Amino acid sequence: MQYFYSSNIINDLAILNEEESKHCIKVLRHKLNDKIHLIDGLGGLFLCKILDDNFNQCKLQIIKNEDVVQRNFKLHIAISPIKNVDRFEWFIEKATEIGIDEITPIVCNKTEKLKIKKERIQRILLSATKQSLNATIPKFNEMINFKDFINIHKNNQNFEKFIAYCGTEITNNLKSLYSKNSNTVIIIGPEGDFTDNEVAYSFENGFNAVSLGINRLRTETAGVIACSTINILNI
Amino acid sequence: MQYFYSSNIINDLAILNEEESKHCIKVLRHKLNDKIHLIDGLGGLFLCKILDDNFNQCKLQIIKNEDVVQRNFKLHIAISPIKNVDRFEWFIEKATEIGIDEITPIVCNKTEKLKIKKERIQRILLSATKQSLNATIPKFNEMINFKDFINIHKNNQNFEKFIAYCGTEITNNLKSLYSKNSNTVIIIGPEGDFTDNEVAYSFENGFNAVSLGINRLRTETAGVIACSTINILNI
Repeated sequence: MQYFYSSNIINDLAILNEEESKHCIKVLRHKLNDKIHLIDGLGGLFLCKILDDNFNQCKLQIIKNEDVVQRNFKLHIAISPIKNVDRFEWFIEKATEIGIDEITPIVCNKTEKLKIKKERIQRILLSATKQSLNATIPKFNEMINFKDFINIHKNNQNFEKFIAYCGTEITNNLKSLYSKNSNTVIIIGPEGDFTDNEVAYSFENGFNAVSLGINRLRTETAGVIACSTINILNI
Repeated sequence: MQYFYSSNIINDLAILNEEESKHCIKVLRHKLNDKIHLIDGLGGLFLCKILDDNFNQCKLQIIKNEDVVQRNFKLHIAISPIKNVDRFEWFIEKATEIGIDEITPIVCNKTEKLKIKKERIQRILLSATKQSLNATIPKFNEMINFKDFINIHKNNQNFEKFIAYCGTEITNNLKSLYSKNSNTVIIIGPEGDFTDNEVAYSFENGFNAVSLGINRLRTETAGVIACSTINILNI
């Protein structure tokens, strides 16, 4: 099974962009009247028929709205970018495959990487969404300062709020504190972890400290474990 | 915290190999009489004093056996190699960080990659073991044929046995079938999945089908999710 993506859908007509058109017509050799599956990236999944197999601008007719399994919880992970770009992009890909709604890169005191190639990230998000047969592309937010992120979320009563870090004093793990079906936002720190001031600031503003297991985890592994913990607990 | 590794330990004396010696003395600038932590890769963790800070052959005296948290379950994942070597090596690194005892590469009908750089894998295993502050390096077995693997494990009553694949008929997930504190072996298929014959053969020999969630996962992602599911359920 293969999903195609278009943001250009009006009523029951959709147009694939150049890249998707080439992939559909040239690589996968679809032809006029073939039936294919299309997502709009916003949760819509459609069965379509190819109306025009132009490999630069493939036109589709929507035949049917397909049912999509809706998750009944929201997961938002805020995570420090990582010096090694591959590791950060790997987190983006895996979190998208496993299931995540929103990702925010945050600048912490020890964050060393301050630039993100947003266009590359968007391509990874789209590719992993299609790969995992999801209909919704996770939202990737602008980079924001750690304290600003806390301030925005401190009064949000619809989300359980956690900060995951390596402190040896943490006795609670994410599994034991998280309530099934709840929306949650989890903050993951940089290489070298959060400073004590950052941890204290998060506590003052309603975030709970959690560990993600007994092993010391790299930033990107912590992000993936947080993501998979929430998804596993909601099965 | 930093762990060093030696396989050359006799009584209370240990010698670091050239690479570990250079890392300890040249990169991290440790000196005579400094105290450092050493693992033997087999579960032993020791506090040591540097007896000779030769950067080609650093000698250590073991001062104390440190306590190591012992997990009370064994996890063995058998997984098909992946065409993209990075993706397979990424699985090895992440499974080691998260917690795994044994990994076996298996050749399935649709496995395309038949060679593995074992020396590279051993380096990744060691590096991820030290990174995650574990004392035991996971065992990486020789590549083996799918059916041979099944035959070896079919009568092993000490392990719960699962096969994870994408079949839409699977109603059980790993979380619901796995019993906490149990030893388990989980088989993960190649890109393109197992053949019907392979699945049937595993059923005939005591393996249970499980899904790893609602999303379609790449091979390496499935491996990591299987690994994190077992670790999370044992918290």
